[in-house]
Amino acid sequence: MQANASDVIAGQDIGVRDGKIVCLGLDLPTSEHTKIIDAEGGYITPGGVDSHVHLEQWNTPTGDTWPTGSRSAICGGTTTVIAFASQQKEDESVLPIVNDYAAQAKDRSSCDYAIHLIMTNPTPKIVDEELPLLVKEHGITSVKLYMTYDSMKLRDREILNIMIATRRLGMTTMIHAENHDMIELVIETLEARGQTDPYYHAVSRPQLAEAEATYRAISLSEMMDTPILLVHVSSEKAAQHIRDAQTRLLPIYGETCPQYLYLLSQRLKGDNFEGAKCVCSPPLREKVEDLDSMWTAIANGTFTTFSSDHAATKFGAEGGKRLGLINGRPMFAKIPNGLPGLETRLPLLYKGVQEGRISINDYVRVACSSPAKLYGLHTKGAIMPGMDADFTIWYPEGKMKPFELTNDMLHHDIDYSPFEGMTFTNWPRYTILRGQTVWDRDQGGFLAKEDQGRYVKRGVSSLGGPRNVFVSEWRPPA
Amino acid sequence: MQANASDVIAGQDIGVRDGKIVCLGLDLPTSEHTKIIDAEGGYITPGGVDSHVHLEQWNTPTGDTWPTGSRSAICGGTTTVIAFASQQKEDESVLPIVNDYAAQAKDRSSCDYAIHLIMTNPTPKIVDEELPLLVKEHGITSVKLYMTYDSMKLRDREILNIMIATRRLGMTTMIHAENHDMIELVIETLEARGQTDPYYHAVSRPQLAEAEATYRAISLSEMMDTPILLVHVSSEKAAQHIRDAQTRLLPIYGETCPQYLYLLSQRLKGDNFEGAKCVCSPPLREKVEDLDSMWTAIANGTFTTFSSDHAATKFGAEGGKRLGLINGRPMFAKIPNGLPGLETRLPLLYKGVQEGRISINDYVRVACSSPAKLYGLHTKGAIMPGMDADFTIWYPEGKMKPFELTNDMLHHDIDYSPFEGMTFTNWPRYTILRGQTVWDRDQGGFLAKEDQGRYVKRGVSSLGGPRNVFVSEWRPPA
Amino acid sequence: MQANASDVIAGQDIGVRDGKIVCLGLDLPTSEHTKIIDAEGGYITPGGVDSHVHLEQWNTPTGDTWPTGSRSAICGGTTTVIAFASQQKEDESVLPIVNDYAAQAKDRSSCDYAIHLIMTNPTPKIVDEELPLLVKEHGITSVKLYMTYDSMKLRDREILNIMIATRRLGMTTMIHAENHDMIELVIETLEARGQTDPYYHAVSRPQLAEAEATYRAISLSEMMDTPILLVHVSSEKAAQHIRDAQTRLLPIYGETCPQYLYLLSQRLKGDNFEGAKCVCSPPLREKVEDLDSMWTAIANGTFTTFSSDHAATKFGAEGGKRLGLINGRPMFAKIPNGLPGLETRLPLLYKGVQEGRISINDYVRVACSSPAKLYGLHTKGAIMPGMDADFTIWYPEGKMKPFELTNDMLHHDIDYSPFEGMTFTNWPRYTILRGQTVWDRDQGGFLAKEDQGRYVKRGVSSLGGPRNVFVSEWRPPA
Amino acid sequence: MQANASDVIAGQDIGVRDGKIVCLGLDLPTSEHTKIIDAEGGYITPGGVDSHVHLEQWNTPTGDTWPTGSRSAICGGTTTVIAFASQQKEDESVLPIVNDYAAQAKDRSSCDYAIHLIMTNPTPKIVDEELPLLVKEHGITSVKLYMTYDSMKLRDREILNIMIATRRLGMTTMIHAENHDMIELVIETLEARGQTDPYYHAVSRPQLAEAEATYRAISLSEMMDTPILLVHVSSEKAAQHIRDAQTRLLPIYGETCPQYLYLLSQRLKGDNFEGAKCVCSPPLREKVEDLDSMWTAIANGTFTTFSSDHAATKFGAEGGKRLGLINGRPMFAKIPNGLPGLETRLPLLYKGVQEGRISINDYVRVACSSPAKLYGLHTKGAIMPGMDADFTIWYPEGKMKPFELTNDMLHHDIDYSPFEGMTFTNWPRYTILRGQTVWDRDQGGFLAKEDQGRYVKRGVSSLGGPRNVFVSEWRPPA
Repeated sequence: MQANASDVIAGQDIGVRDGKIVCLGLDLPTSEHTKIIDAEGGYITPGGVDSHVHLEQWNTPTGDTWPTGSRSAICGGTTTVIAFASQQKEDESVLPIVNDYAAQAKDRSSCDYAIHLIMTNPTPKIVDEELPLLVKEHGITSVKLYMTYDSMKLRDREILNIMIATRRLGMTTMIHAENHDMIELVIETLEARGQTDPYYHAVSRPQLAEAEATYRAISLSEMMDTPILLVHVSSEKAAQHIRDAQTRLLPIYGETCPQYLYLLSQRLKGDNFEGAKCVCSPPLREKVEDLDSMWTAIANGTFTTFSSDHAATKFGAEGGKRLGLINGRPMFAKIPNGLPGLETRLPLLYKGVQEGRISINDYVRVACSSPAKLYGLHTKGAIMPGMDADFTIWYPEGKMKPFELTNDMLHHDIDYSPFEGMTFTNWPRYTILRGQTVWDRDQGGFLAKEDQGRYVKRGVSSLGGPRNVFVSEWRPPA
Repeated sequence: MQANASDVIAGQDIGVRDGKIVCLGLDLPTSEHTKIIDAEGGYITPGGVDSHVHLEQWNTPTGDTWPTGSRSAICGGTTTVIAFASQQKEDESVLPIVNDYAAQAKDRSSCDYAIHLIMTNPTPKIVDEELPLLVKEHGITSVKLYMTYDSMKLRDREILNIMIATRRLGMTTMIHAENHDMIELVIETLEARGQTDPYYHAVSRPQLAEAEATYRAISLSEMMDTPILLVHVSSEKAAQHIRDAQTRLLPIYGETCPQYLYLLSQRLKGDNFEGAKCVCSPPLREKVEDLDSMWTAIANGTFTTFSSDHAATKFGAEGGKRLGLINGRPMFAKIPNGLPGLETRLPLLYKGVQEGRISINDYVRVACSSPAKLYGLHTKGAIMPGMDADFTIWYPEGKMKPFELTNDMLHHDIDYSPFEGMTFTNWPRYTILRGQTVWDRDQGGFLAKEDQGRYVKRGVSSLGGPRNVFVSEWRPPA
Repeated sequence: MQANASDVIAGQDIGVRDGKIVCLGLDLPTSEHTKIIDAEGGYITPGGVDSHVHLEQWNTPTGDTWPTGSRSAICGGTTTVIAFASQQKEDESVLPIVNDYAAQAKDRSSCDYAIHLIMTNPTPKIVDEELPLLVKEHGITSVKLYMTYDSMKLRDREILNIMIATRRLGMTTMIHAENHDMIELVIETLEARGQTDPYYHAVSRPQLAEAEATYRAISLSEMMDTPILLVHVSSEKAAQHIRDAQTRLLPIYGETCPQYLYLLSQRLKGDNFEGAKCVCSPPLREKVEDLDSMWTAIANGTFTTFSSDHAATKFGAEGGKRLGLINGRPMFAKIPNGLPGLETRLPLLYKGVQEGRISINDYVRVACSSPAKLYGLHTKGAIMPGMDADFTIWYPEGKMKPFELTNDMLHHDIDYSPFEGMTFTNWPRYTILRGQTVWDRDQGGFLAKEDQGRYVKRGVSSLGGPRNVFVSEWRPPA
Repeated sequence: MQANASDVIAGQDIGVRDGKIVCLGLDLPTSEHTKIIDAEGGYITPGGVDSHVHLEQWNTPTGDTWPTGSRSAICGGTTTVIAFASQQKEDESVLPIVNDYAAQAKDRSSCDYAIHLIMTNPTPKIVDEELPLLVKEHGITSVKLYMTYDSMKLRDREILNIMIATRRLGMTTMIHAENHDMIELVIETLEARGQTDPYYHAVSRPQLAEAEATYRAISLSEMMDTPILLVHVSSEKAAQHIRDAQTRLLPIYGETCPQYLYLLSQRLKGDNFEGAKCVCSPPLREKVEDLDSMWTAIANGTFTTFSSDHAATKFGAEGGKRLGLINGRPMFAKIPNGLPGLETRLPLLYKGVQEGRISINDYVRVACSSPAKLYGLHTKGAIMPGMDADFTIWYPEGKMKPFELTNDMLHHDIDYSPFEGMTFTNWPRYTILRGQTVWDRDQGGFLAKEDQGRYVKRGVSSLGGPRNVFVSEWRPPA
């Protein structure tokens, strides 16, 4: 059964040639050279697009490399990742950063990949001169902005300035929305009180900080008539702000991640600094109702994309999560943020399909087709003639033996997974990348070459863009 | 360009054989017998599904017949209609009604068609014994219920009783939601004051009456865990209630109609009883903002279907709109309700695409694919292999000469259209029904045979159904 | 300290003469005849007004009589009650009912009292001819309407008809809002399944039924521009509807009762039919959050009045709660509805002041001054010169020994209280009725004569009335 | 008729001695020395409290002085003003500022007065050491913070820091909420385009900027459990945020001003730089619906205080509004902000009572009693024994001849009023300050001595304060 974002088709073949889908139909003609893969009634979904992945970023020294990360992606059904080239405050040009990052990835990814830019210092030169080049020449059509973290955060005015450019260029503007000042104050006082265990990470970043910044980001967007994506949304209130904006037809998009569907802040407790494994931002939330509200926001259409936010650092290694142990004492604010999740993303979402929380169409929409559209991956994310022949093929229900996840089943180079111990009754059986079987869970496992992935020059978003509707007689600069 | 509910594909062919889509792809093989239709870059959309049509109903004596109505549908790009067999209060069985109505339509429709049942007296025998037969043997999988009109209205308890059955049978439950008692009171007092001109029809049915009944219908649905469709929604507040319910994942669906996108209550004024032409219920609303809110509710996904609610009666004929002239005096409450709109439905919606109010995907979703899914027309409404080869093909933008609509351009048997005088810059160029060209606007016009349409036995809805979530420990009878 | 609805005054005297407050001030002149009561710093609040009390109503045969009920009121700090003369469906005139009820109460009440009318069959004669007489001659300026109970419920149209009259006459329209049809269906199916224990009473009347009917009642009110009071609100959603209406300035008022602040549906469980003691409608709700939401709606101003809805029947007596035991089997639907609460109402609300849930001004507003205003008791409910010298005087905090309530401490003639076992740290110390000390908890207890209470002819509400704002061009009959 | 925030009393006397209300009652005893003022049935309201007044502030050189401003207050029925001592960014101590400002006012105010502090640079020394002294020794119990203006604005973190102190000290925290960065960007681009006429002032500060900052301020308050007042609210959306917070019982207060009830942005247009007269921030809004929404927010209780925000500068003088003419060219961003309004505040609000928009109790609440409570003026704002004998006495309705306001009728030292040309049918007839008649409109006019006003050392707010309810396990520093 083929599933796309709006339909399910049964009993049809998919014809592939030269890495492309060339035909959909019944009883398609074959030749002796035709390789046939029988899904046996399992779902065939478009290859997963993970649009929020940190790999070999300067600030995650012990994390996955392009080879290990992309391998992990493939083995979890993901055929395309978008990773971040990241500006540091002192960088006055982003072109070298992007070039270096592209060079770093070249021939080292087994899945297809594209590149976002993280901007932390939007100088006029970068905004006015370099962004257009990125779009036009590099196919980099998205930027990520932070409202928090000392080394990353932008003031509202900087965000507004960038929005002028991204609106004009059609770039997708991703925003990490948490109120920095609230969090900063809380961290300082917690530290002064000696409340520095990993669990206080969750205490220090309340849902209110996310809700406020989300509302502010939406307001900036409405002011400028510039589409934005709120990344890794974790709070019901933030999701409501997004929904309210969408109700009014503002081009506001939302993303959530597996951790906000399954894990609670309780996980930040535990002996031996174990809680550090689950330190990410926004933090894990308090209650089952918080998780439910995230599932609801996928099912009712509030969320546009579902990504891993794979930002892994090893737990046991020097320079990994243990950076948060200062002289043996836990200091939550020093723990590198982020979780590994590239490989588990799709199985965790599919589990929600099996459990009736979302439909298979929702799955395709948030994990494959909408990220492809939002980020201008115009040959990805859908099973249609003319698209890349990227597929995730699932087991027919009932065929796979249930198993409990252990980290050694995974293909990343991280020494833990926050999802260990969970039981799965389906998992990507085959991953097909541009017509090649790169993962066959039952026979051969990981089959891709290290350089099998290609860099994808992206176009601009095909989802709703600026509306030319304004809040006063003022108009943003063209 | 092919458009479906979530994507647009350019440059691909659609292969058709024996009335079915057999293949989608590039450069499909042809033979000398292959008939090729070149869309020349115009949109190819699934044949329109008009899921709310009144034809030859006992209470519309001067309206369209099956031949004239279905012809009008075809010429407006619609390939499937669902019309109403209608119980009268005194009918103690609905099977004869349905059989008679089916017999009436047989061999007299040039488009494909299916049948809903209007229930006005849900006796236990009908609900418990006959509805299952309708679903199983007749492929009639939907009922329409009225909360207003003396001859039609059901009490809450009757609706609840029906919901027990429709939930169990998977039938789609359509509800006309207006508070009868409010309207009844207002009409009586207006008549007592001599305020009986057609315009008072709009005064007599305020948006509040619709909002109240909509909220009540949603409450009944939530109580019973039974999906419903609110038909012909005309008010922002009613749409908000639907949206709020959807946000909470209740299986609540909404429909609107062309008249609520384009026409204002001002149209009910005018000399010579002209206002009677625009009498429909809910009535036309007061302000441009009201129209805008309906467009918004299509674009943000609140509305599931877009139908004509074609319920035409002639203006000039005996027994038509003039029934509302009593001894030469206008009596708005006696004017037959309803407007003609089968043929203009799709062009009016497409106009919204051209004007940027909605996307072409929204068009397909509400006019073709979602009605097909909601009503179990499982071979209709989508361009996918295995589906019926029903298409509406539009002119490439810029190719068609703009024209101003006059009634003589239309193919219904009604002596007016409320949309006369509007300018169009596109219109269905070809209509294809199961592979046959039945409308070619430039060459030949209407080409179907009178019996070309087939009756479609429907399955049950494939949209979200009961959730097994309840408001107390009580459970509805299985 | 004197408390009114907006201020607290410390250190001032209240001068009383001939049953009236004649003066407020410091060091008021006294004579040898002056009786001085020293509040010792405890709060002096206006005498309680309990505007929702059922006494000697035809359908509560084992309940309190006027003497026992009014005694209980006085001992709980309440100086005025409004009780219900109740029409039965077959009564074609309400004047005899009112006259009989007034005669019944005459000289048998130790507190002041007034009379509401329950209408269950609004014939034109009653509505058009008798209501004006009630207002003008009897000082009966309020009616209560039911949307549920077979023997009481009115259709929307009947409510609308009554609203025409109450709007014109300035009568306060009280509405018991629960969707009858939902509840009826649920009761029938529960009974068919043998789920008839008292606990199923709560199951059978879900919050949704209240929320729906509340929204409908508000809609009817908005349509007619007629103020209403929603009585005994028990659900957050219903309170939200009221709040939303108030935000829009609709003259919608709300009432809640002590049981919805303190008791949960769990109380309906228990051996030996004990749950029957807590059967009331709307029923007790499920969760602590439900109770919290009612406190919130007092504190944020949503609720206008706080009444006991005293509707007591004995638990042990023939014809009391045991009517719900049919052949020894519990049948929840046959249990007489209602709880005793006249005497505990004020102490329970004051407890909320002590616990910081509401302010002392909120207490006065909902328990004294707003009910007096809403029901036209223009000499009651406030400590101002010219008003009746009715007071409840509380102990200075810390002075009273905490105690656990037992039923034998109460002065009603009911064999239980649902609030037994609760701990109190304050209680009305003195009750003063028109200048006479009628309750002195420490010395003498109940001091009133059985005929000490007077009938109060009421005026019309001084809270916000019709606004002359309408939902369409239609106007209600003047 | 005496009106307070919750009641109206007719036919009662107010006894005054030594500047205090000593008694309320009927037929109070008099002696030959008793001066009697007969209100003749006109409303007697508490003397007006104008809690937001700028007088002799360093940045309004051409504005009113203490003598002219306080005279204007008295002649408009206001007996108490609270004015601002204002820190400049470079000031490292606020004690001298406050002392200087107090010295400046001393013996130069004919009405009673108190002082707020504007903080623009909250150094630790000021926050930790000086604020406690202000509260304890100076009776300065409120601070005003700005989220906009280059010379005034604070970052979120600075506001949070201040909140720690104001929460602890019980100080009222006033916030001017507009998103600075949005406005800054807009002004820059408007100036670059040459769109610098006064009207663009309104364009440059959209309602969205106010709504965003209001939501943010509420979030900061919720985070810190610190009460705030949003000053001069002008937008419906901002008012809704406040209302939503109040619904949840957060201690959020709101204020609006006469200009937002009566004036539209259209007033910023006009020849000869006339629009500059109406430049204030937030700016006048676009539509009548905007004005209506402010009236609604008074009537439904959202707004707590109603102040003039008197911040006058002369139109014709050097250094006044004409600072916005640069080389003869209008530059809206250089026009001194603010309007005169001390004298017209109460008549404009009373007009709303006359027109049925609000009740007389609403008038007293927002113009007298709630500002007194919120700012700890514990002897002001209510007609109760023990309070200062401050009154505004109005004409009996119908007694005063309607007149059209001209600036020469006013007693300020400003050369225009934005309310000139409006027709009034009532006006303060007498103003009584601590028992002395200081304004008698018909006989003598302004009667106060220049040093008649006294400085009021304030206590802390008696409205709802911190709730000890927190958004996470974190607690603000005690």
